[in-house]
Amino acid sequence: MRLALALEYDGQAFCGFQSQPQRCGVQDALEQAIGQIAGHPVIVVAAGRTDAGVHATSQIVHADVDAQRPPSAWVRGVNAHLPTGAAVLWSQAVDDTFHARFAAMRRCYSYLLQNRPERPALQAGKVGWYHHPLDVGAMCQAAAALEGTHDFSSFRAAGCQAKSPVKTLDRVTIEQRRDVIRFDLSADAFLHHMIRNVVGALVYVGSQRQPVAWIRELLDARDRTRGAPTFSPDGLYFTGAEYPARFTLPATRRDVSWPV
Amino acid sequence: MRLALALEYDGQAFCGFQSQPQRCGVQDALEQAIGQIAGHPVIVVAAGRTDAGVHATSQIVHADVDAQRPPSAWVRGVNAHLPTGAAVLWSQAVDDTFHARFAAMRRCYSYLLQNRPERPALQAGKVGWYHHPLDVGAMCQAAAALEGTHDFSSFRAAGCQAKSPVKTLDRVTIEQRRDVIRFDLSADAFLHHMIRNVVGALVYVGSQRQPVAWIRELLDARDRTRGAPTFSPDGLYFTGAEYPARFTLPATRRDVSWPV
Repeated sequence: MRLALALEYDGQAFCGFQSQPQRCGVQDALEQAIGQIAGHPVIVVAAGRTDAGVHATSQIVHADVDAQRPPSAWVRGVNAHLPTGAAVLWSQAVDDTFHARFAAMRRCYSYLLQNRPERPALQAGKVGWYHHPLDVGAMCQAAAALEGTHDFSSFRAAGCQAKSPVKTLDRVTIEQRRDVIRFDLSADAFLHHMIRNVVGALVYVGSQRQPVAWIRELLDARDRTRGAPTFSPDGLYFTGAEYPARFTLPATRRDVSWPV
Repeated sequence: MRLALALEYDGQAFCGFQSQPQRCGVQDALEQAIGQIAGHPVIVVAAGRTDAGVHATSQIVHADVDAQRPPSAWVRGVNAHLPTGAAVLWSQAVDDTFHARFAAMRRCYSYLLQNRPERPALQAGKVGWYHHPLDVGAMCQAAAALEGTHDFSSFRAAGCQAKSPVKTLDRVTIEQRRDVIRFDLSADAFLHHMIRNVVGALVYVGSQRQPVAWIRELLDARDRTRGAPTFSPDGLYFTGAEYPARFTLPATRRDVSWPV
């Protein structure tokens, strides 16, 4: 039987999603916990493998299990075996054509950036930080150039394993509440470090180190070396993925909170 | 010179506000950091000494320093010496009649309670948790009985050192957003564990283990043994204190965020 599950986790508690020899990945914890309920080893596949320090409000995974268990066992039972920083929110049996990674039509992320002179303490590890005031209007204008289908090589990490640098960014929105700026992005898929590189570049615009038009130039240049430094993982949240309606899943997206 | 400071901290990073022999208190970290800038040992006094695990969005403290430093030194300089989980938000010179504890006319706390079947993971340590649905309407009705001046012995921890169990609770409000219930309380002063005991009792009402009228009976009984268990410190935030206007301080209160 194939199971789909939604998972919430605190990126600070793990060394990234992917399994590691030291067993510190979210995947390691989840495979171990589901394996305890299933009674056999399992492998989980995620919609989006997040880096170390990156959080998830709604990571979608699937796993194949042989055991018949009451539905609650795949939520409450698994949660009893997961560490504090991770919890399954729902689980549902799906047909074998469901694949958390390949069936996902769209992935969604949010980035929370605290913009104040003092470094974050209460939200340390849960928000990025920039100490000088940012011009959010200029950032919004610049971000518009990123929407649509583009070659995102200028925002791609050196080690990125994606087959193509061409992605379709459906949405980049930027909003501010009190001293927190929230970036919401959705795309068919993202390159490695793409969001953190986009946030870094937009902060260059917001801080007037670069003009609004620079984002389009950077995109056209297709050259990572001309971009801004990769922003901290602390403020990045995987907020869900979208799947064809025929899988009739519970909510696969979950907005990140405003920390103010 | 007497300094007033506002401080934000993550209660998970410390063993409570008060200085401890192991030097793990917020007070220890702050005295050490201010001492580095002042160049001499300092003692800080807080508006409200929080327990282990309890957070602050705006703890107000004062300290006496001999050194003349530019105002930014008492914020940025001190922050450079504070650990990740604490940060000074502002600092201001005040006259010697200011006392963070004795001049405070009112203290404010919020409690965040996540009410959903699955335990909190992303917000672990930052919210309390109750797994069965709660009747927030009944809790609001019951809470109204607590407002005003009362003997709060039924909500007082055994080791409480307050001179009198009579306190004036100006406000108890309860609001819900998505799956988080937020309690806001303000009073001239609080007894030890008073808020966590109030939250525990209101959860008894919300879960229909006790009727609405029970809160008033409990108050009248003045007997801690008849109350509910003390709720977890995880969701408790000290959100500020109020002082006479003549001290002309920056904002001494700062609302807690909604984690949803």
